Amino acid sequence: MKSVLLTGFEPFDGAAVNPSWEAVRLVPGVHAVQLPCVFGEALEHLREAVREHEPSVVVCVGQAGGRHDVTVERVAINLDDARIPDNAGHRPIDEPVVRDGPAAYFSTLPVKACVAAARSAGVPASVSHSAGTFVCNHVFYGLMHLIATERPALRGGFVHVPFAPEQVLGEAKPSMPITMIAEALAAIVSAAVSVAPGDDLRLVGGSLH
Amino acid sequence: MKSVLLTGFEPFDGAAVNPSWEAVRLVPGVHAVQLPCVFGEALEHLREAVREHEPSVVVCVGQAGGRHDVTVERVAINLDDARIPDNAGHRPIDEPVVRDGPAAYFSTLPVKACVAAARSAGVPASVSHSAGTFVCNHVFYGLMHLIATERPALRGGFVHVPFAPEQVLGEAKPSMPITMIAEALAAIVSAAVSVAPGDDLRLVGGSLH
Amino acid sequence: MKSVLLTGFEPFDGAAVNPSWEAVRLVPGVHAVQLPCVFGEALEHLREAVREHEPSVVVCVGQAGGRHDVTVERVAINLDDARIPDNAGHRPIDEPVVRDGPAAYFSTLPVKACVAAARSAGVPASVSHSAGTFVCNHVFYGLMHLIATERPALRGGFVHVPFAPEQVLGEAKPSMPITMIAEALAAIVSAAVSVAPGDDLRLVGGSLH
Amino acid sequence: MKSVLLTGFEPFDGAAVNPSWEAVRLVPGVHAVQLPCVFGEALEHLREAVREHEPSVVVCVGQAGGRHDVTVERVAINLDDARIPDNAGHRPIDEPVVRDGPAAYFSTLPVKACVAAARSAGVPASVSHSAGTFVCNHVFYGLMHLIATERPALRGGFVHVPFAPEQVLGEAKPSMPITMIAEALAAIVSAAVSVAPGDDLRLVGGSLH
Repeated sequence: MKSVLLTGFEPFDGAAVNPSWEAVRLVPGVHAVQLPCVFGEALEHLREAVREHEPSVVVCVGQAGGRHDVTVERVAINLDDARIPDNAGHRPIDEPVVRDGPAAYFSTLPVKACVAAARSAGVPASVSHSAGTFVCNHVFYGLMHLIATERPALRGGFVHVPFAPEQVLGEAKPSMPITMIAEALAAIVSAAVSVAPGDDLRLVGGSLH
Repeated sequence: MKSVLLTGFEPFDGAAVNPSWEAVRLVPGVHAVQLPCVFGEALEHLREAVREHEPSVVVCVGQAGGRHDVTVERVAINLDDARIPDNAGHRPIDEPVVRDGPAAYFSTLPVKACVAAARSAGVPASVSHSAGTFVCNHVFYGLMHLIATERPALRGGFVHVPFAPEQVLGEAKPSMPITMIAEALAAIVSAAVSVAPGDDLRLVGGSLH
Repeated sequence: MKSVLLTGFEPFDGAAVNPSWEAVRLVPGVHAVQLPCVFGEALEHLREAVREHEPSVVVCVGQAGGRHDVTVERVAINLDDARIPDNAGHRPIDEPVVRDGPAAYFSTLPVKACVAAARSAGVPASVSHSAGTFVCNHVFYGLMHLIATERPALRGGFVHVPFAPEQVLGEAKPSMPITMIAEALAAIVSAAVSVAPGDDLRLVGGSLH
Repeated sequence: MKSVLLTGFEPFDGAAVNPSWEAVRLVPGVHAVQLPCVFGEALEHLREAVREHEPSVVVCVGQAGGRHDVTVERVAINLDDARIPDNAGHRPIDEPVVRDGPAAYFSTLPVKACVAAARSAGVPASVSHSAGTFVCNHVFYGLMHLIATERPALRGGFVHVPFAPEQVLGEAKPSMPITMIAEALAAIVSAAVSVAPGDDLRLVGGSLH
C-alpha cells in the first residue's frame, strides 16, 4: 500500500477556518499535515513532513474562495506575487519561488482521472490551469521542484477547494460542505495512487482561456 | 401543532431530478407534495393539496439553477413570461397569472426570520426579490392569491434552492447537497410556524438593485 | 412631439460618479434631471420635475453595479429595505414606500420593445424583474404611484445601467462606457414614445427564477 | 522607432466576428496580421509574419469570452487540451505544443506596466495567470518558444479581450466595445515598447488562486 501525505493550510486573511485543513483531516488512511500560510515557512514544513512520512504520493490542498467546485491544478509557476500579506506579514511581488528554477512544473498526478474520480463520488470537479500566485502556488511549485530535484519517485500535485458554507452564510458566494470536500479528496487520492500519470484518462477538460 | 404543507416540483427542462422535490421529501413532520412543472395544472394540484391537508402554513419550493444559496422569496408578481416551454409544452408570454389580480403579493412568511433560521442551521441563505416569471412565480402568486381571496388564516411563501451537485458535476455552476437544502427547509419551516409575519426580525437583507 | 423626462442619480456609497446621471445628461431631446440618492427627497424632486416639465413619458435611471447589460425594469415593489445608508444617512428596513399602497406596480413602458430597441442600437440589454429595495426601487414605485393616483396619462418606468469603466478599472466587475449607455437610453426613449404599452412586442424575455 | 506586430484571430466556434481581430486592425502604427484559429497552422502564420515584418515586439491577441476586462497574460504553458474543435476540426487532448519544450514560458512584456497603461487609458485591465489550453495558449507558447530558441532580441506576449457587445446582445455575459479594446491595445503596445521587462513596475497584481 502506498503512503499518502495530504496537506491543508491554516486559516488566512482573517478567516476563522480554512476548509482545506478541515477537509484534509477527515480523509482516512493518509498522513494529514497542516501548513502555515507563510511564504518560505510553508515549504519548510512540507519538506519536513515528506522526510518524516516518506510518502509515495503528496497532495497539497488549499482554499480557492469563489470557485464552485473542487479543482485539480495542472501547473505550478515560478512566481510569488502576493495580493495580500501572508500570515507573517510578507507580501512578495514578482519574485521567483526558486531562483533559476524552471518557469513551471506540471502536476504529476493523473489530473483527468482525479477529476473523474471526484465526479464519480458525486462532487463537482474540474481541471484548473492556474493555482494563482500566492502561498498555494508557492507550495505547489516548491513541491514539484523538490520532486524534480531530489525525489523523482514521488508523485505530487495540488487541489483547490471552495469556501465552507460557514464562511459565507450571508454572502452571495459559492461554498461546499467540508464532508463533501473530504469525499472528493479521498476519491482524488485513490485515483492518484492507482493511476500512473502516463496512464491518465484522455478526457475533455481543457479551457478555452 | 400547526400543520405544514411543503411542495416541490417535478424535474423540468430535460433534467433528471429537481432538487426542490428531493429536498422537500426529506423534511420531517410536514405534508410533502410534488407539483407538475406546468402552468395552471401546478396550481390545481396545489389547491387540492391545501384542501386535503388543511395546513396552517404552506411553503412552495422550486429550483433556481445558478443561485449559490437558499433564497426566501419576498414577492410574487402577476406575470407569466416563459423563457422555455413548461412540461406540457406551454410557453405563455406576458400573460397575467390571474386576470385582474393585483400586480403582486408579498410573502406572508417572516422572510428575515426564515433566512436567519437557515443560516443558524449552517446553510447560506438570503432574501430574494424576484421569483422569476416561470412556473415557480406562477405557483407562488397563485398561492398568495388563494390566501388573499379564500384562506386568510393561511400563511404562505416560496423558497428557491440551488442545483443539486449531481446536476452540475462537470459544469462551472454552484450547487448544494440535497441534505443541506433539506436542513435549510426544516429551519425555515420552524421559523415560519413560530414567527408571525408582523413579528419578523428587523435584519439587513435588502438589495441595492 | 412628446415631451420626455429622464432622471439620473447623484453618486452614492462613496463613489465619485454615477453612470446613470452621466449617461442621462448625454441623451439629446429630453429634459434631464438629477435626483438625490435619498429616500423621500428623491421622490419630491421627481414630483417637482414632473410639475415643471409636464412630460408625457418619464424614464428614471439608476446604477446597478455588477450587472452586465442595460436592464429595463418590469415591476416596482412597495418596499424600502436598505442594505446601506442613503446619502442622508437613512437606512429604512422593511418599510413601505407608500403606506397602504398596492404591493407593486408594473412599468407602463413597453419593456420588450425597449429591450429590442437597445439591442438594435448595438447595446446588450434585457428585462429585469427586480429593481432592488433601495432608492432606485423607491423612486420607481413612487413614480408609478404618482401615475396611478394623479397622472393617468403619463407613461413611466425605470432602467438600470452597469458601472462605468472608470469605476472598476482594477476590479473584476462588468462595466459599460457612458456613451454606450446613453445610446441605449436614447433607443429606449424612442421605443417608449412610439409604442403604447398595450402594443408591446411579444418577445421572449422572462426569467426562470 | 521599434516595429510592432499585433495579431488577432479569425472567428471560431460558430461566431461571426472575433473581437481580437476587429480591435487589432484599429490600432495605429503597427503591423496587424490575422491568424487562423487552427492548431499548428496559426503558429506557421505567426512565424511567417515575424519573418516578413521583423518586429521588435509581438503582441498576440485573442478572445476570452466571459472575462470582464482586458487581461495581459503572464505565462504560456506547454499544453494543447482542446474543449472544442478548432476551425480545422482538430481537437488535441493533453498534447504538448512543442515536444520536449519546457513546461512554460513567462511573457517578456512588462505585464504590470501594460495593465497600468490600459487602466490609464480608461480601460479595466488586469494580469491573468492562465491563457487556457486552446489555440490562444498554443500561439502564445509557440511565440515564446520562437523567441527563446531563435529570436532572443524579440519581446513578446499575449493579451486576452472580452466579447464584443454585438456577440452578446441578448445574453447575460460581459462585453467591451471594439474601440475601447483597441485603445487598451494601443496603450499596452506603448508600454511594451518603452518599458523593458526587467524594469516592469512593482505593482500589486497577483491572484490568490
